[in-house]
Amino acid sequence: MRLDILSVVPELLESPLNHSILKRAQEKGLVEIRIHNIRDYTLNKHRKVDDYAFGFSAGMVLQIEPIDRIIGKLKEERAYDEIIYTSPDGELFNQKTANSMSLLQNVIILCGHYKGIDHRIREHLITSEISVGDFVLTGGELAACIMTDAIVRLIPGAMSDEQSALSDSFQDNLLAPPVYTRPAEYKGWKVPDILLSGNERKVNEWEHEQALERTKRLRPDLLR
Amino acid sequence: MRLDILSVVPELLESPLNHSILKRAQEKGLVEIRIHNIRDYTLNKHRKVDDYAFGFSAGMVLQIEPIDRIIGKLKEERAYDEIIYTSPDGELFNQKTANSMSLLQNVIILCGHYKGIDHRIREHLITSEISVGDFVLTGGELAACIMTDAIVRLIPGAMSDEQSALSDSFQDNLLAPPVYTRPAEYKGWKVPDILLSGNERKVNEWEHEQALERTKRLRPDLLR
Repeated sequence: MRLDILSVVPELLESPLNHSILKRAQEKGLVEIRIHNIRDYTLNKHRKVDDYAFGFSAGMVLQIEPIDRIIGKLKEERAYDEIIYTSPDGELFNQKTANSMSLLQNVIILCGHYKGIDHRIREHLITSEISVGDFVLTGGELAACIMTDAIVRLIPGAMSDEQSALSDSFQDNLLAPPVYTRPAEYKGWKVPDILLSGNERKVNEWEHEQALERTKRLRPDLLR
Repeated sequence: MRLDILSVVPELLESPLNHSILKRAQEKGLVEIRIHNIRDYTLNKHRKVDDYAFGFSAGMVLQIEPIDRIIGKLKEERAYDEIIYTSPDGELFNQKTANSMSLLQNVIILCGHYKGIDHRIREHLITSEISVGDFVLTGGELAACIMTDAIVRLIPGAMSDEQSALSDSFQDNLLAPPVYTRPAEYKGWKVPDILLSGNERKVNEWEHEQALERTKRLRPDLLR
């Protein structure tokens, strides 16, 4: 998979994309992540990428020209499955989206910033608008990191132990059961006896019951 | 506001918390963000913070001891309004949560990692569990960045133009209207005439209609 991320503050993306699983997935050649600075595609000498909104609202808007130029250049180099804009009014990103996106070959993610992007970009250049939640962020960069992280960890080989991804929350529409580790007792707080029993069948049953109970109590919507 | 973020991969948090609005808010003294490495609170010489889960599941679990030690130390220094754990089965974070959290004084955010954290931490040390969405991330670090960004930008003075935050999506239960900037025409794609009319009342009416239309079409749930 190849991911091209377009941003006006590319330095913001550095640390999340270069540690832990994302770092290793790139080193293993499972994903190629390219970060592009939209400012490199301006034609004006001040590398200005934004301007005042038409109308009377406050806030700056990202201009169409440099973004059209960079997307055009990338599309000349290869075919893209999706050109995604991260926006709070896009389609909600969830584990199902992550699963299906992990199968794509080439994806562009455009990060908005300031008040937003010129709407003509959304009408003419973007193929899919995705939101990571009902909240407003300074820019789309963190949304792009979230999507990248959720997607790349699902690519076979990205995680050291694939069992671990399969038993994550949401993969079976159930929340994960509680987990415990050593010590078995700490300040009088004990690990449930069943987990120390060594009886694999009973432990598995208990974990499934716990997952079901937690889902019913905390997220009944997942069971409908 | 003071935010203490606890992590086993603190380097992952660096770039998102030190650019753009979050950087300026810290420089202006509006928020103090302290990142703590949980490994600094282990007593073993290898600074090990995780161990195998009790039972038969794959994946490593963060241990209770170093986390109890760091939270205990912080609570001795000051009173905390909330000790938050970022988890996909927590309460869903949204703009309303961001608004109310922006009024808090002292907050701890504990980032999970690996398979999760020892459940006794959640039962005995955490006051609130928050999810940023129905997807699984490598760790809670990106969720902590999302929350921090969404919250801090709402602190008065954090944004250069407060009007800009007030007209964001969700603040009035409406999606934002489309925005446009120069040039008025690009490759034959034109900005709506009304925005070039100079008639403030009509522009405001159009923007409200557009916001309402977009919300009805894309997110009718926000209007219920």
